[in-house]
Amino acid sequence: MASSIAVCRVHMSLLNKLHKIETLLCRGVKTQHTAAAAQMKTVNKVKHDEKEKEGGKSLYDVQVERQQQAERSVLISCPSRTNKERFLKHLLKYGDIKTHFFYESIGVYAVVEFSSKEGVASILERASIPSVSHESMVPFKSRVLSLRNLDKISNQQSSIQLQPQSSASTNELIQRLSREKSFDQQITSLAESYQLTEENTRLRFLVCSLLKDVAAPFFPECTIKPFGSSVNGFGKMGCDLDMFLDLDGISGRKVKQPKLGLSLEYQMKMVNTERRVTQSILSVIGECLIQFGPGCEGVQKILNARCPLVRFNHQPSGLQCDLTANNRVAMKSTELLHLYSELDPRVRQLVFTVRCWARTHGITSKIPGAWITNFSLTMMVLFFLQKRSPPIIPTLDQLRDLADPEDKCNIEGNDCTFVSIPSKIQLKGNTETMENLLGEFFEFYGTFSYTNMSINIRKGKEQNKPEVSPLHIQNPFEISLNVAKNVNASQLERFVSLCRESAWLLQHAHDKSPSSLSGSGGPQPWGLATLLQPSQIAAIKRRTRTSQGPVRQTLKSWVESLK
Amino acid sequence: MASSIAVCRVHMSLLNKLHKIETLLCRGVKTQHTAAAAQMKTVNKVKHDEKEKEGGKSLYDVQVERQQQAERSVLISCPSRTNKERFLKHLLKYGDIKTHFFYESIGVYAVVEFSSKEGVASILERASIPSVSHESMVPFKSRVLSLRNLDKISNQQSSIQLQPQSSASTNELIQRLSREKSFDQQITSLAESYQLTEENTRLRFLVCSLLKDVAAPFFPECTIKPFGSSVNGFGKMGCDLDMFLDLDGISGRKVKQPKLGLSLEYQMKMVNTERRVTQSILSVIGECLIQFGPGCEGVQKILNARCPLVRFNHQPSGLQCDLTANNRVAMKSTELLHLYSELDPRVRQLVFTVRCWARTHGITSKIPGAWITNFSLTMMVLFFLQKRSPPIIPTLDQLRDLADPEDKCNIEGNDCTFVSIPSKIQLKGNTETMENLLGEFFEFYGTFSYTNMSINIRKGKEQNKPEVSPLHIQNPFEISLNVAKNVNASQLERFVSLCRESAWLLQHAHDKSPSSLSGSGGPQPWGLATLLQPSQIAAIKRRTRTSQGPVRQTLKSWVESLK
Repeated sequence: MASSIAVCRVHMSLLNKLHKIETLLCRGVKTQHTAAAAQMKTVNKVKHDEKEKEGGKSLYDVQVERQQQAERSVLISCPSRTNKERFLKHLLKYGDIKTHFFYESIGVYAVVEFSSKEGVASILERASIPSVSHESMVPFKSRVLSLRNLDKISNQQSSIQLQPQSSASTNELIQRLSREKSFDQQITSLAESYQLTEENTRLRFLVCSLLKDVAAPFFPECTIKPFGSSVNGFGKMGCDLDMFLDLDGISGRKVKQPKLGLSLEYQMKMVNTERRVTQSILSVIGECLIQFGPGCEGVQKILNARCPLVRFNHQPSGLQCDLTANNRVAMKSTELLHLYSELDPRVRQLVFTVRCWARTHGITSKIPGAWITNFSLTMMVLFFLQKRSPPIIPTLDQLRDLADPEDKCNIEGNDCTFVSIPSKIQLKGNTETMENLLGEFFEFYGTFSYTNMSINIRKGKEQNKPEVSPLHIQNPFEISLNVAKNVNASQLERFVSLCRESAWLLQHAHDKSPSSLSGSGGPQPWGLATLLQPSQIAAIKRRTRTSQGPVRQTLKSWVESLK
Repeated sequence: MASSIAVCRVHMSLLNKLHKIETLLCRGVKTQHTAAAAQMKTVNKVKHDEKEKEGGKSLYDVQVERQQQAERSVLISCPSRTNKERFLKHLLKYGDIKTHFFYESIGVYAVVEFSSKEGVASILERASIPSVSHESMVPFKSRVLSLRNLDKISNQQSSIQLQPQSSASTNELIQRLSREKSFDQQITSLAESYQLTEENTRLRFLVCSLLKDVAAPFFPECTIKPFGSSVNGFGKMGCDLDMFLDLDGISGRKVKQPKLGLSLEYQMKMVNTERRVTQSILSVIGECLIQFGPGCEGVQKILNARCPLVRFNHQPSGLQCDLTANNRVAMKSTELLHLYSELDPRVRQLVFTVRCWARTHGITSKIPGAWITNFSLTMMVLFFLQKRSPPIIPTLDQLRDLADPEDKCNIEGNDCTFVSIPSKIQLKGNTETMENLLGEFFEFYGTFSYTNMSINIRKGKEQNKPEVSPLHIQNPFEISLNVAKNVNASQLERFVSLCRESAWLLQHAHDKSPSSLSGSGGPQPWGLATLLQPSQIAAIKRRTRTSQGPVRQTLKSWVESLK
C-alpha cells in the first residue's frame, strides 16, 4: 500500500498523465474513510444523535433547532461537590428535564435543558437575588444561576462527570494518535478530538440565547446567531464564539404604503449609514454587558473596526466572544463551509489535520499578523479537494448552479447563491485514503505556482493572479478581495518549505506504522504523530542527514524534478 | 377691608397679642379662597374632571392611574395641516380612543389614549419603518410615531386646537391679572395659569412610560415615576420633568431561604455600593437614549453627581428630563408636598404667587448657585402657613401622628412616616384671604431672625440654628441637612429687603383696585400685577420718594418698629 500511495504522491502537473495508473492502484485501497467514520466513538453523554442528525440539514434548520433548544436551557453554577441525583431531583421541581450535562469553567457548571420554556419561567420565578453583606447586586435577572447547598458540609462524594470543553494539548494528542492502529485512524482520531462536541455546541447556542435576552428587549424581532467556526463544521474545541446580531427579521421595513390617505410610521433615530446603525446597537449591547452581564468580563466595544464588534470573555462558558451585526457575507461564508463539511467526512478530517499541523509548526498563530489564517488554510484544503480526480467536492459555481430559486442571495452586489441542502449534491465517488490525501496536499502546495496563480474555490481552478500579494486566495463571495492579503512572502515561504518537507517525510520517514511502547512507558509516536512533533521534522532531517548523506540536497532535487 | 387687612399685617412677635383682635377682624372677610376656587375655569378640552378627581387621593393612587393611562397612549407627530376628523377616523382603525389632544412642540403632536392596550399593540403592529434615501434608521420601535399624509397637498384648513404646554410670559400674566376684579382673584388666576394642565400632566406620565419601555426590558418589574414639581402640586407649566427609576418592585430580594437543602440564586454583577448599582443602570439607559431614543437630544450621563442622573431633552414633549434611580427620600418629599397642596387651595396659590414674585425679581434663578431655590421657597411658605393662627396646614409631626401602620416608612435611618390620605386631616378653619396671607408672608420673612433661627416644617416652630449658614431650613426628612445650604448672605439680604419692600408696597401702593384701560389699550396693572413688574418696586419707590419724601427712611423705621 505504501508504494501505491507513493505513486499517487506526484505533482499535480503530472496528474493527468498518471490518472489511469492512479485509479487502478487506488482501486485496491480499501475505502478507509468510510470505515473510519463508522468507528467514530460517541464520547458525549447526552443525545449523541443530535449532532449526527444534523448531517444533511441546512445550516438554517440547524440554527433554528439549536436556538429553540437554547431558549429552553439555563446555566447553573454548582458547588464542586454537587450530587447529581439531588441536583436533578431539585430541578425537577421546576419542570421536566430533557437533557443536562456538567462541565468545568471557573468552577463547575451545568447546562440544563427543560422540555418546555415553562421550566425556565418557573425557575426564574422562584430564584432569589443573592444577598451578600457589604456588596450590592445589579438586579438584572438572566438565565445564569447559582446553586446553593445549605446543608452542613458533608463528605459526600461528587457524582458528576465533567464534559471537556477544550481540545487536548498537542502532547496528549500525540500520545492518543500514537495508540491508533493506522494512519487514517490517526486522522479520524485527530478530527474527533478537535471538533466541537455536542455539549460545546449547545453551550455556544446558549451563550447566543443569553445575549439575545439582552438585545431582544430593544429589538424583539432580532436573533443572535453563531457564525464562523462555531457552526461551519471546522470549529476546534475552545475556539472563539463569533456571533451575529441579525436584525433582518424586524418587520415594518419596505411596507407597501398606500398611495393616498394617512399612514403611520415609527419615529426613529436617523443616521448616515448602516454602519452607524450597527455601531449604535453594539454600543448599547456592550454597555449592557459591561454593567449587567453576569460573568461577562473584559468587555471591549471595538466600534471603529472595519466590522464593528463587541468582544468579551463569557466566564460561565469559558468562551471568548465577538458580537457583530449586519455581517451577512460572513454568515453566507459559514453556510458554505458548513455545506462542504457535511459532504464528505474527509473534508473535515483534512482541514483539522492541516490546521493542527500548521499550528504545531507556527504557520498559523493566535496573534493577528502576516501568518496564514485558519480560514485561508481551509480555503486551500477545499480547493485541493476540488482539484482531485474525481473531485471530492464540487466547485462553488457548481453549487450555485444547483441552487433552488429560494436559495438566491445577493448581498451588496455580491452573488452569494448556492444550494442549501447537502442531499441535492451528487458526489463523484472519489475513494482516496486520508493518508494519500494528506501527502498529496503537502505536495500540491509545496509546488503550487504562487507567483502567477490565484486559488479560487468558485471555479475550482487556478486563475491568473489579479494582484501582487505573495499568496492570493479569492474571497468566494466578495470576489475582488484576497482572503490571504495579510500573508507576506517570508510566511508563505515557510509554509511552502514545510509542505515540501512534510511531503518528503510522509514518503521517506521510517515511522510509518504503529510500534511498541517507547522507553518512557507511553506509545512511540509514529505516522501522523511524528508530523505533529514540533522538533520532529528538523530532528528527522538531522538523523537522515547523518545516516543518508546530504538529504536536503536529495529533497531539493526531488522537488525540482516534480516541477 | 383694607384696614382690617392692614391690621393683620404685623410681625409675628406681635401676633400673640393681636390674636384676638385679628380673629375678630378676619371673621368679616368673606372666605374668598373658596369662592375663587369655585370660579376656576376648566380650560382643558379633555376629561377635565380627571385632575380634580385626584383631590383627596394619595399620590400613590394618582401615580398608578396615570401610569395605566400612559401605557394606553401613543405620541404622534402630525403634519401642521392635519384635519382632526380624518386623523381620528384613521386612528379608530386601531382601536377605540378614550381621549386625545394636540399640542405644539417641534411641530404639532397629538397624544392619543386608547381604551385598552390592544389599540397600542395594533398601531405598533401596523406602523412602518420610514425609508429615507441616503439615511439609515436605528430600528428601535417605540410609541413615538409620525403621521404621513400621502394625499396631494390641498388647501385644507387645519381643524386642530393646540393645547398650551408652557406658562404665559410675565407680560401676558400681568395683562391677565390686571383684568381681574379683586386681589384674591388675581392670585387664583396666577396659580391657574402657572399650574400644570391635565394635558401637560398626561404628557409627563407618557414620557415616563416611554422611558419605562427602555428600562423595563432589563428590569421588567421596574417603574418610572415622575417626582418633584411634576406631581407635587406645585409644578409650573414647562417645569423640568424629574423621574425616578423605582427598582423596589423587583422580586426575589430578601426571599426566605430554606434552612437546608438546595436553592437557586441569580448570578448578578456584584458592586461595592447601591450607588454603583444606580450608576450602572443609568449608564445603560443613558446609552440607549443616546443611541435609540427617538427625539431624545443632548443626553448627558451625569453619573458622578451626588445623586447620579441622566439628563436629556425630550423633543416630542418639549420637556427637559432628569432621570435618577433610588432617590426614595425625594419621592417621599414629593408625596408630602402633594399632600400639603391638596389640603387647602391657598397653599398652592401662595406658593405659586411667591415663586412668581421671586423669579420676577431675580431671587430664584434657573442657574444653580447661591440663589434661593423653589424648594426652599415652598418650605418657607409651608412653614408660614403652619404658623398662622389658626394654622392653615398641620406640622409634619402632626401628620406623622395621624399615620396608619401602613404609612410607616424609614429610609436609610430617616423617619419618613406621615399620613397618606388627605381626608384624614382635620383643618382648623382659618379663613384668611390671599391678599392678607401674601402681605403677612412678606412681613414674616422681612423680619424673621435668620441669624439665630432655623425654619422647621416638622415642628412648625422656629428652632435654634444648628449651623452658621445664612439661611437654615431643615430638610423635613434628612433632618441633619439644610435645604438652603447654598444660599449666601447677600442673596438672603436681597430676599429680605424685597420682602420688606413688597410688604410695604402692599400696604402703601395706590394701585390697590382695578382701574380702567391704560393708554396703550391694555388694562392698567394693579394689585398683584404691580408687584410682578420687574421695575415696579423701584419705580414706585422712586415715585413715592418724590411725592411722599424719604420713603426708605419711613420703611426702615417702620420695619425697625416691628422688631
